[in-house]
Amino acid sequence: MLKFWDNFENFLGDRPNLFAPKNLEFFFKKVVSEKNNNISGYYELPFANLDYIESYLNQEQNFLEKIKCLVIVGIGGSSLGTKAIDALLSHQSNRKKIKLRFLEHTDPIMIQKELTRINAQETLFIVISKSGLTIETTSLFKFILAKYKLLQQENKKNLLIITDKESPLSFWAKDEGVRYFCIDKNIGGRFSVLSAVGLIPLAILGYDVKKLLKGASEISHLFFTDPKNSILKKALFLAKSENTYPINVLFSYSSVFRHFNSWYVQLWGESLGKLDAYEQRRGLTPIALIGSIDQHSFLQLIMQGPKNKSVTFLNIEKSSQKSLYIPDISLKGLEDTDFVNQASFNTLLKLQCQSTKESIISQDVPVDSISVSFLNEESVGSLIFYYELLTSCVGIMLHIDTYNQPGVEFGKKILREKFTHL
Amino acid sequence: MLKFWDNFENFLGDRPNLFAPKNLEFFFKKVVSEKNNNISGYYELPFANLDYIESYLNQEQNFLEKIKCLVIVGIGGSSLGTKAIDALLSHQSNRKKIKLRFLEHTDPIMIQKELTRINAQETLFIVISKSGLTIETTSLFKFILAKYKLLQQENKKNLLIITDKESPLSFWAKDEGVRYFCIDKNIGGRFSVLSAVGLIPLAILGYDVKKLLKGASEISHLFFTDPKNSILKKALFLAKSENTYPINVLFSYSSVFRHFNSWYVQLWGESLGKLDAYEQRRGLTPIALIGSIDQHSFLQLIMQGPKNKSVTFLNIEKSSQKSLYIPDISLKGLEDTDFVNQASFNTLLKLQCQSTKESIISQDVPVDSISVSFLNEESVGSLIFYYELLTSCVGIMLHIDTYNQPGVEFGKKILREKFTHL
Repeated sequence: MLKFWDNFENFLGDRPNLFAPKNLEFFFKKVVSEKNNNISGYYELPFANLDYIESYLNQEQNFLEKIKCLVIVGIGGSSLGTKAIDALLSHQSNRKKIKLRFLEHTDPIMIQKELTRINAQETLFIVISKSGLTIETTSLFKFILAKYKLLQQENKKNLLIITDKESPLSFWAKDEGVRYFCIDKNIGGRFSVLSAVGLIPLAILGYDVKKLLKGASEISHLFFTDPKNSILKKALFLAKSENTYPINVLFSYSSVFRHFNSWYVQLWGESLGKLDAYEQRRGLTPIALIGSIDQHSFLQLIMQGPKNKSVTFLNIEKSSQKSLYIPDISLKGLEDTDFVNQASFNTLLKLQCQSTKESIISQDVPVDSISVSFLNEESVGSLIFYYELLTSCVGIMLHIDTYNQPGVEFGKKILREKFTHL
Repeated sequence: MLKFWDNFENFLGDRPNLFAPKNLEFFFKKVVSEKNNNISGYYELPFANLDYIESYLNQEQNFLEKIKCLVIVGIGGSSLGTKAIDALLSHQSNRKKIKLRFLEHTDPIMIQKELTRINAQETLFIVISKSGLTIETTSLFKFILAKYKLLQQENKKNLLIITDKESPLSFWAKDEGVRYFCIDKNIGGRFSVLSAVGLIPLAILGYDVKKLLKGASEISHLFFTDPKNSILKKALFLAKSENTYPINVLFSYSSVFRHFNSWYVQLWGESLGKLDAYEQRRGLTPIALIGSIDQHSFLQLIMQGPKNKSVTFLNIEKSSQKSLYIPDISLKGLEDTDFVNQASFNTLLKLQCQSTKESIISQDVPVDSISVSFLNEESVGSLIFYYELLTSCVGIMLHIDTYNQPGVEFGKKILREKFTHL
């Protein structure tokens, strides 16, 4: 479903043996060990039993058939993955006509916008937080509890909780008699989209979540049966080039990737920006672009600015959309643009992607590409798991803890103090 | 309208005299000379006579009162500025209830989405291109010409062109009898939002465009009457730190800044990523974030990743929105979040911005901030011109041509070849 290509061999300089089997195997074993020791629970998600989702959908069939809106209350890893996958697959005929909204921002402008024209009776609110103590999520949770009286007995069916096993929020839900699902504590937010966190909302929207896992399991199989796989090789190149190419650009050629881009930025930035085991600052900086639009914004900098970037192109081979064509019109004085006449916009977009890739390669920039044959649950599951594995590999190579985020705690303490002194 | 703060003095290291008056004056004179020699026409835009807009609005009053949708056909500098300003000011009561859409992407998914439920009779299509030869814009232009039969005499009133003086597109419009406005050739796309490119659409939407220019002229006055102004100082710090802090993060605290962020990324990236006069690769890499959301995505990397970033915080002092409050609800087991109860979401957002700023400062990261007292035409005009001047200053300091974009030409050539061999 995914095809890979790269030109990394040209950038090995004084390390021509970087991709020697012994180096790849060295790190391959570490990834296997991380998986086997259950350092993060995400490795096993592709193989999870999904009966709990099926039985939930069956039990609640009558209610779920009536809902017109799904509101996810959650931030970061609790919202980005679902948003990304829905944007990639919303063209599919199995996607139900349910509005999907997100309460993730404490900005009152966004709160009002997202809650516009919501009929609470026809809405399912899903509150997602690992602990229940995320200040944005809990504040927004309290807001909807009050606004829509969700704790009145007859309204409790409109509320669903997804949280860690034995978290404060899970105990609260149990006490209150509010339905809840739990995920393992060792599945970090940004690695959680293939757990209940993403699968419950996506299943309610109509997607075939088994196929998402099937796609993920295929990539997992590819990776763990071949120590010389291209994910490990790419990770090794990026980790080794940490100082030469500290910036990793993802250039996605279709507007449907906009939220996937945001998911990637969180996964990459928050996982890999860390103090390592020697207390040294490590990390790779993610930047995500959309083609062709950002050819008119960021391309100039890649082409002629400092050579501190690697670039990954992401494109779709076969569009799921009806073709639109550029009419065969010639405008006097503008005939220079006629060479695209009668082509489809898809062809134009695809060739723009190729042309930009070639022009960047001509500047001796490390480039790789991921081609998705066709967008469906399977290929999207593969793409998600590809990036999760890549992130784990780089994290291992940088000697960091890929799965924590200690750097954000300090700001939370300051916030609490500020409120104390208000 | 704007307040500035920075901690750059702490990062001067072995150059404690960096901000000495003679250094600032050296570059100040170069900016003055660039302005006086009309190297870019944007410097004079705040002082432009806007009678032509007023007379257009008067002449077309009957037609403009009837339109329900404005479709901008344009990419990059032709669309980003208008989109940014409308998002910042859409809360205002003078904003007419006209839908604003953008045809900027060759992605057929976006084309179909943007043209959904458009009644061409009640729509004004504004095609914006400096030359008329931008392949995306012209292809989309041909598409709407065919789809809505805009060249039939009775439909020509629904079409408006904004282009360079004596460009192929201006000649075409004249020949066809289609209304058009011209801008000076030496106003680059990404510096053009305060010309007809942005002002015509914004005036049609109801905004007071004179006040936009008034805000811009205030910043211009501040800058050009004080060689020791904070814009020049900031530019000097960023240019001098090009290799130490190659990444500049703009952390904007409100969702209304989302499109302003994109405008900034284009302005900064495309202006400053260049070969300099010694044929060396120069540039600063822009990254734009939204708070508080991206505290859960990118903050960890800033806090503990490599120290290769400077961070600018952008916030609004006084919200234009109705206050929403966090209810005084205490949930069993989650009492730890009660410290924000009864606060407004605005207060929470503001204190989150301050806390994040303080936590980043604690890591010895160069930080500055821009506080907008209140969002209106004047403050937005100031903000736009602030960033344009800042970009010009850094460009001068890097010895580059801030106003061209030669690096994107190569990809265009390849594209043309690919079509020839299709």
